[in-house]
Amino acid sequence: MKANDIFSHDYFMRQALKEAQAAFEKDEVPVGAVVVCNNKIIARAHNLVETLNDPTAHAEMQAITSATNSIGGKYLHECTLYVTVEPCPMCATACFWAQTGILVYGTPDEKRGFSTISSKLLHPKTQVVKQILANEAAELMKTFFEKKRKKY
Amino acid sequence: MKANDIFSHDYFMRQALKEAQAAFEKDEVPVGAVVVCNNKIIARAHNLVETLNDPTAHAEMQAITSATNSIGGKYLHECTLYVTVEPCPMCATACFWAQTGILVYGTPDEKRGFSTISSKLLHPKTQVVKQILANEAAELMKTFFEKKRKKY
Repeated sequence: MKANDIFSHDYFMRQALKEAQAAFEKDEVPVGAVVVCNNKIIARAHNLVETLNDPTAHAEMQAITSATNSIGGKYLHECTLYVTVEPCPMCATACFWAQTGILVYGTPDEKRGFSTISSKLLHPKTQVVKQILANEAAELMKTFFEKKRKKY
Repeated sequence: MKANDIFSHDYFMRQALKEAQAAFEKDEVPVGAVVVCNNKIIARAHNLVETLNDPTAHAEMQAITSATNSIGGKYLHECTLYVTVEPCPMCATACFWAQTGILVYGTPDEKRGFSTISSKLLHPKTQVVKQILANEAAELMKTFFEKKRKKY
């Protein structure tokens, strides 16, 4: 890796993928997220829906709560949310309320991604970058659901 | 009140309105929610976005987290969520993930309510009842925003 690559989208998405892997190891749908502000990771989270019995415990929701708590304000204007899979409408709307500066996601979610409903769910000021390390995120999801199907 | 009115939609919505009033008194946008299962209130919550500096701390989100925690499972099939104002897309999608049995809301939110985006945000099995004590909920919102406008 070149020195100027250190703070690339790939670098931070790789941190989100580590979170997704942690979810995978807990038998959770493997989605991970990090929030970055001034090149510093201020929040890390992974999906904990099954562990917490909480349908709202998506990686992004926890990351947003943790990041706003870290900042001490309810907005993430200056922040980038990295998430391995396209957010669902719940998480996209949480990005809206936080007025998140940039949303970077990996693989699209053709079934439950926010864009299957409406791109208007995001704040008009939020920039969107997609397909960052998409193959890695998609592969993790595919492996997870194949394992699930074998189990049941 | 007649005895058979005790467990009416009005009765439970009045409990949600008490939560909304509690939010109002904390200078929070006055939205309240309760979750009812077998005629028993298993969760109560009100908007705490400002208090917690957390854009995800809507009344419904907290009520769903609390209710699923109370039940020990991630679904609210047998439950009714009462909320004083039409849920935003974040909260409607949280209802979706919880597969909430019935959603009862008071006043519509013509600016940020989920139905301004898509009614598909809710789970197809979720029944929706609206306009329950709508005037009370709307009046509380109106008073809140009038007070805000005078202040700033």
